[in-house]
Amino acid sequence: MTSSFPASSTSMRSERDTYVGKGFVHVKNPYLDSMDEDVLYHLDLGTKTHNLPEMFGDVKFVCVGGSPNRMKAFALFMHKELRLEDSEEDVKDICAGTDRYCMYKIGPVLSISHGMGIPSISIMLHELIKLLYHARCCDVTIIRIGTSGGIGIAPGSVVITDRAVDSFFKPQFEQVILDNVVTRSTELDKELAEELFNCSKEIPDFPTLIGHTMCTYDFYEGQGRLDGALCSFSREKGLDYLKRAYNAGIRNIEMESTVFAAMCRLCGLKEKSP
Amino acid sequence: MTSSFPASSTSMRSERDTYVGKGFVHVKNPYLDSMDEDVLYHLDLGTKTHNLPEMFGDVKFVCVGGSPNRMKAFALFMHKELRLEDSEEDVKDICAGTDRYCMYKIGPVLSISHGMGIPSISIMLHELIKLLYHARCCDVTIIRIGTSGGIGIAPGSVVITDRAVDSFFKPQFEQVILDNVVTRSTELDKELAEELFNCSKEIPDFPTLIGHTMCTYDFYEGQGRLDGALCSFSREKGLDYLKRAYNAGIRNIEMESTVFAAMCRLCGLKEKSP
Repeated sequence: MTSSFPASSTSMRSERDTYVGKGFVHVKNPYLDSMDEDVLYHLDLGTKTHNLPEMFGDVKFVCVGGSPNRMKAFALFMHKELRLEDSEEDVKDICAGTDRYCMYKIGPVLSISHGMGIPSISIMLHELIKLLYHARCCDVTIIRIGTSGGIGIAPGSVVITDRAVDSFFKPQFEQVILDNVVTRSTELDKELAEELFNCSKEIPDFPTLIGHTMCTYDFYEGQGRLDGALCSFSREKGLDYLKRAYNAGIRNIEMESTVFAAMCRLCGLKEKSP
Repeated sequence: MTSSFPASSTSMRSERDTYVGKGFVHVKNPYLDSMDEDVLYHLDLGTKTHNLPEMFGDVKFVCVGGSPNRMKAFALFMHKELRLEDSEEDVKDICAGTDRYCMYKIGPVLSISHGMGIPSISIMLHELIKLLYHARCCDVTIIRIGTSGGIGIAPGSVVITDRAVDSFFKPQFEQVILDNVVTRSTELDKELAEELFNCSKEIPDFPTLIGHTMCTYDFYEGQGRLDGALCSFSREKGLDYLKRAYNAGIRNIEMESTVFAAMCRLCGLKEKSP
């Protein structure tokens, strides 16, 4: 097992409103602006109940990860690193009214949990993107920090994702919209990956590399594990699959990166390079 | 919105060990019995660290739902209903060592949270089925209690699921195993559905019906909602989809029922009646 560091930079630009060119986070929904109220159900926030621009307008970085405890620990770590004037006790869960996700704000950094799997992170991303849009945030970078299983790399390695791929090693995410399947790209910001890799050189404790990350719908049967309640393939078949994944450039497996890449890209992923 | 009550009875029978015919919970994994230790990672339990038969051997009912707080409230409700001798304070989270899921045991009843979406419940079910198998539980009934969106029914209605269907209205679940797609049946126990429906007649406060339940991978684009960060279909297209779903016998939408039905069935769903 390794820790993973799938990463994407999004400086999201509006396509259709007055914010074009200013790097504002945008949505792709023609119905949203005509709604009287937008309730972000799973975050326990809303446009009528909360002053979102005041609460979140200064956000520049969003870090997301599966576990609520880990994202709280990350928030406390950021609080220490940023040497903010308020006390550690002020780092409070903004979504305390719901047990679906937790969210902490530390200066310009948001730390949010997203649970496990594509559907769980997808609900959070819909509501997070709307939150950043309502708050008129601009030039926002979003990074997923999560645990993952390494393939052919030293345990404890950090993998910076340059491309999220599905179980068939394809850089795409299949989104079911009503009863249609739409294929979306999962390329990530290469310049940010390089930037993060350069940062890693200053931290000698963790072997760090850039590679592709495979995203599966399942932890056991989908990832070649032999210890689930169900296992219908042989040890050899499982190993062969992981070898083919390695040969396709994949260095770790997790369960959220494709939809993360697809949604951030759709809402204005700034392609800094190449 | 309605509350949903997708339900399945599983009196799981072993296929290959000495428990055949006794209604024991079973796994379908030839590698499991030869493992020195089975760690149930996401439940913070294991065969070497815990005496699973002693802790869980008497379990007869498992109730699962998305929200940790709700499953705790359900556990406290069961504690009151069963009039157990121990105090309410003894209803403690067995999985307190992890923040992935929570689990409470109230006499013969387990109450467990599973987060949101197919991948999240799938991890929990793999580890729960192994737990019940290691604990040598027999004649276990499992019921999912969750919130859902109703289609063409009164708000607050309870839908007892007779069949879980996918976004294309098909009673199947597509499981990706390595890079193969395997289709699994999602039929549920019809006798249990009738039993639950008969129970509902004693509770006049909630309109209750039996119907098909649609399971999607996404809360917004997949369910015809117009208030996500992304929405590429018209109001009319969305309504047309929901109408077609209603005509196919679907009465509510949620995000876990197909994999729940498929996995419980595979591990020995007792088909009490057609």
